[in-house]
Amino acid sequence: MRQNGADNENTQAVLMPGERVEDLQNGFFIIQSPACFAFGTDAVLLAHFVQARAGERVVDFGTGNGIIPILLCAHISGLCVTGLEVQPELVDMAKRSVALNGLEERISLMCGDIREAKKLLGTGFDVVVTNPPYEKADSGKPHSSEQVSIAKRELLCALEDVACSAAAVLRNGGRLNMIYPTARFAELMVTLCRYRLEPKRVQLVAPRADRAPGFALVEARKGARPGVQFLPQLSVYEADGTYTPPLKRIYGEGK
Amino acid sequence: MRQNGADNENTQAVLMPGERVEDLQNGFFIIQSPACFAFGTDAVLLAHFVQARAGERVVDFGTGNGIIPILLCAHISGLCVTGLEVQPELVDMAKRSVALNGLEERISLMCGDIREAKKLLGTGFDVVVTNPPYEKADSGKPHSSEQVSIAKRELLCALEDVACSAAAVLRNGGRLNMIYPTARFAELMVTLCRYRLEPKRVQLVAPRADRAPGFALVEARKGARPGVQFLPQLSVYEADGTYTPPLKRIYGEGK
Repeated sequence: MRQNGADNENTQAVLMPGERVEDLQNGFFIIQSPACFAFGTDAVLLAHFVQARAGERVVDFGTGNGIIPILLCAHISGLCVTGLEVQPELVDMAKRSVALNGLEERISLMCGDIREAKKLLGTGFDVVVTNPPYEKADSGKPHSSEQVSIAKRELLCALEDVACSAAAVLRNGGRLNMIYPTARFAELMVTLCRYRLEPKRVQLVAPRADRAPGFALVEARKGARPGVQFLPQLSVYEADGTYTPPLKRIYGEGK
Repeated sequence: MRQNGADNENTQAVLMPGERVEDLQNGFFIIQSPACFAFGTDAVLLAHFVQARAGERVVDFGTGNGIIPILLCAHISGLCVTGLEVQPELVDMAKRSVALNGLEERISLMCGDIREAKKLLGTGFDVVVTNPPYEKADSGKPHSSEQVSIAKRELLCALEDVACSAAAVLRNGGRLNMIYPTARFAELMVTLCRYRLEPKRVQLVAPRADRAPGFALVEARKGARPGVQFLPQLSVYEADGTYTPPLKRIYGEGK
């Protein structure tokens, strides 16, 4: 049994000031820093939503600290994933997390802009995954740092850029998997369809069964015929504040 | 207390062969005929979803036997509604239901094609309501009659026609309210946005909380800024097959 990373000397050696190691509860660990990037439930739900198999070419656009590639490798045996991230400090953090988990053979990381994905990575991908910036560039509320703002706000990359680059690198029939706020759901549908990324599988995520769903998990297939399958809504919490059974399964996966 | 219509001599006098009177459980009655048109839960949910007030100009596209105008009049005090229906036998049935309920001053019915709505009704409407044909014209499964096929299938009127005509008759800021299958949700979003009908309020309807939502209630506002509010999902049945509390409220409304 592996020790909790934060108590482990080897782990401490790879940490920079302000960073800590999070135990993913599935045998894997991740380095994060509240000042730069800390993953949320959205990344966990998205990684769980992705359907991919070993041998497929998979890329995560805006991989941050590498949380999605690491979770995908934890869930899907033999899968290899490329992570593309524009912020060099986050690429560095992700590389250290990959090494910490011994995933160097399965996860490759590249520093670069989503808008340059085709030039950087080529084409023919089976799967693009992305938890892109959600907030409009001119959103009011300030973030704790420029790094968090770049991850959360459309400063370097808007929805249109994500769709355009995903369509450019995916093979025909390849799948884009993403999570996005329901407040922008109509815009998401219109933008995906404009790039021939046809929404095929959607699951809404609500904080509780009786609350409004705030996020949508969406799989779109390049060049597919129209027709969406909605999955049962995913509710995160019970009325008493504990996780629902599906969330317990998601967080317990790999154990 | 009003007697159940089916037992009432006056009611029997207005029925044609094959027709029966349904007690709407809210003080109102409706004539329907399984061979021509019988309303479903979708119409009831849509009527409940509509937000309108007395004095607004409201039209129901494809009103069938008039179920939606009658339910709207039952819910919203003083509201007046126009029903547009292409099938003359259904217009006749709807007129008899309106008379049966004494709603001649509040509901007017017109025989005509949704595609001609602007020519027939003019412009400046505040609200369009529609429970349009859902099924593609070439859907396989046959219906019991040509009349049912026209009501359920895109034979005379496709989604594009509904959006085009709604946009044509609505004032700027006016609202289109509709129910549509989630399988065509992406197409719905794209089509509405193409006509500047911006989706603003969405509620998904699932048979049970743990089942996939099959229908979406959508309010789109002409010329509005993007931004959708999703409401908590509406589940119809509990696990034991009884109605959920929200459905009980909807069916009990007006009592």
